[in-house]
Amino acid sequence: MNNFAERFEGVSGSAIREIFKLLANPNIISFAGGNPSPDSFPKEKLAEIAKRVLLEKGESILQYGPTKGYMPLMEEILDIAKSQGIEAGPNNIIITSGSSQGLELMSKTFVDKGDVILVESPTFIGAIQTFKTYQANLVAVDTDEEGILLDDLEKKIKKHNPKFLYVIPTFQNPSGVTLIEERREKLVQICSKHGVKILEDDPYGDLRFSGKKVSTLKSFDTDNTVVRLVSFSKIISPGIRVGAAIGGAEIISKFELCKQGMDVHTTNLAQVMVYEYLKSGELKGHIAEITEKYKGKKELMLSLIEKEFPKNIKISPCDGGLFIWITLPEGTNTLDLFKKAVEKKVAFVPGTHFFAQGGNENTMRLNFSMVSEQKIEEGIKILAEVMKGNI
Amino acid sequence: MNNFAERFEGVSGSAIREIFKLLANPNIISFAGGNPSPDSFPKEKLAEIAKRVLLEKGESILQYGPTKGYMPLMEEILDIAKSQGIEAGPNNIIITSGSSQGLELMSKTFVDKGDVILVESPTFIGAIQTFKTYQANLVAVDTDEEGILLDDLEKKIKKHNPKFLYVIPTFQNPSGVTLIEERREKLVQICSKHGVKILEDDPYGDLRFSGKKVSTLKSFDTDNTVVRLVSFSKIISPGIRVGAAIGGAEIISKFELCKQGMDVHTTNLAQVMVYEYLKSGELKGHIAEITEKYKGKKELMLSLIEKEFPKNIKISPCDGGLFIWITLPEGTNTLDLFKKAVEKKVAFVPGTHFFAQGGNENTMRLNFSMVSEQKIEEGIKILAEVMKGNI
Repeated sequence: MNNFAERFEGVSGSAIREIFKLLANPNIISFAGGNPSPDSFPKEKLAEIAKRVLLEKGESILQYGPTKGYMPLMEEILDIAKSQGIEAGPNNIIITSGSSQGLELMSKTFVDKGDVILVESPTFIGAIQTFKTYQANLVAVDTDEEGILLDDLEKKIKKHNPKFLYVIPTFQNPSGVTLIEERREKLVQICSKHGVKILEDDPYGDLRFSGKKVSTLKSFDTDNTVVRLVSFSKIISPGIRVGAAIGGAEIISKFELCKQGMDVHTTNLAQVMVYEYLKSGELKGHIAEITEKYKGKKELMLSLIEKEFPKNIKISPCDGGLFIWITLPEGTNTLDLFKKAVEKKVAFVPGTHFFAQGGNENTMRLNFSMVSEQKIEEGIKILAEVMKGNI
Repeated sequence: MNNFAERFEGVSGSAIREIFKLLANPNIISFAGGNPSPDSFPKEKLAEIAKRVLLEKGESILQYGPTKGYMPLMEEILDIAKSQGIEAGPNNIIITSGSSQGLELMSKTFVDKGDVILVESPTFIGAIQTFKTYQANLVAVDTDEEGILLDDLEKKIKKHNPKFLYVIPTFQNPSGVTLIEERREKLVQICSKHGVKILEDDPYGDLRFSGKKVSTLKSFDTDNTVVRLVSFSKIISPGIRVGAAIGGAEIISKFELCKQGMDVHTTNLAQVMVYEYLKSGELKGHIAEITEKYKGKKELMLSLIEKEFPKNIKISPCDGGLFIWITLPEGTNTLDLFKKAVEKKVAFVPGTHFFAQGGNENTMRLNFSMVSEQKIEEGIKILAEVMKGNI
């Protein structure tokens, strides 16, 4: 008998694990993942870097490193942050093993059992699961096509006295929505006024297809309200597991203490490789290249959806990122649709999984980055066929 | 104001952080760390592997991978486990980002606030800190020069109803002690009888200088009582952050769920590199080589201690691993000795830090793996000088 901790009550994640197992089946056209395109990785460049840095400084790369991270990489990330209007020094940053680790560190640092975390509605599945393992009480803040509704945010802050607000402000997962510039500073001010921290998760911000650039939430921060998570997963490689968190020095110091247990430090080789890649100056061109590719795939998928899907659906605006979010007519159940689609070898994620309190069974998320153009054509047509009889 | 979680009450780690900052000072002869020798890393081989595997399969190495880990590496580790008398299949293993992550996963999986964890007395500082961040109540089990005292173990199990026992059975950190073969099966049986799990942490077991090989605790496990942590930090590289946990399928499945938040998965490149290195067949010779080196350093340090240190000290037996553990006469305070030694540019770890409940100020830990022979001579002589006036 295993006498597990209480934290697993209410955490299953099994529905999602089943969906993601489908991704491993090469016969399935999967719009379910959130993976970058496998041909988007700069593998030759990284292979050359890996060999070179191991030969040059293997003694330190293969030795234990500091929990906070590789200083030259941190400085490079602080430079990027500066160009985004963020004032931060070495005490304000820690390297994370992917930005997901930032969610774990934020939870471990702030959350006692029963504490409230505000999340967008819908929000990232992985965040829901991580927060639940800290026995947090998740409360959804209403959103529209311009992001979080500030009135509802303030109402819920007053009602629930949350520890922090978790937000993906740009090309949100799963909705694709971007919090408009006009609401950004105000959002930070509201949270600051009430002593509520903000966890700004921004893995997609660099993948913009259209529309105007927006300011980071962190750039409006005057009193260490915002912890910003930096990710290289969508612009260099997710398998390398390197990200960062930028925030108040006292918070980062707690993150460091918590990270010591989690992995002591992020794999040094991975950190040095990301640093050398950033220093090579190739990132900007690389981002332009993959953004162009993803834009083409998105436009293809969107035009096929508009042509093939029923007309009584709502497609969320998508100016960048990896996802198209669709709301089907009330009464439609995408969990049923999912089962039928999988029989025909096409997968997506039923939208209900992205809602902390469930419901919204008439929504679905489609990923366009990982699948080839040809498979997008095939898959969308199959999905349209499945829908015809069912919505 | 930061409204941090309760878990930080009683967790400081600051004394230790201060000590380890000294390691970064090249003018200090540090016997304080637990690092392998920097010249022990197979850097050329790893450089060649890194480049080759990225070119050959960069598309999958740089993509997201499964949380459980890279299957060929898991199979390789299971093969090694089999040679150690351990029956385990793919459902019984998960790759961890260093074996330290296993301590975090075990804690997250089993510990609710106030739960008791039994630990050796003394034990690994990092374990004390990780367990405390889960608000566990640490209870020390008495040990002698042959490891844990089984009577005291059973007494404390009955009294405290612990979730698990944490034990480093071979070349223990910090004491260097090895749990004798005669106590091993009985220890597993006692824990099994009372439904108490065992976390077997074994990073040093391969570094044997003398004495007879002992059985792993896991090899006596008949009912998933033991979770065994596998580490490559002391035999390949700590900076690469690759280890594994082997245990009951239900436990490993909970570890997988918890690891999703911590880092999604261990850096794929690091996993593939360790796999390829294991497959190369070079590990056995490499271990023999570094063990020989460490044995020489240990003998040098030991002979100098016997010659230079006061005679009224007790040196624990050391058949392998990285540490020499010394007990000074009652009334001696190694915290004071430490300050004086640092003034003369030599560092060690005062033993009190390794005791969950403190005390034992007359103990100290010396590491012999990282420092050169010449520095060992210099450093021990300086320590002896410092001691002369003070014990």
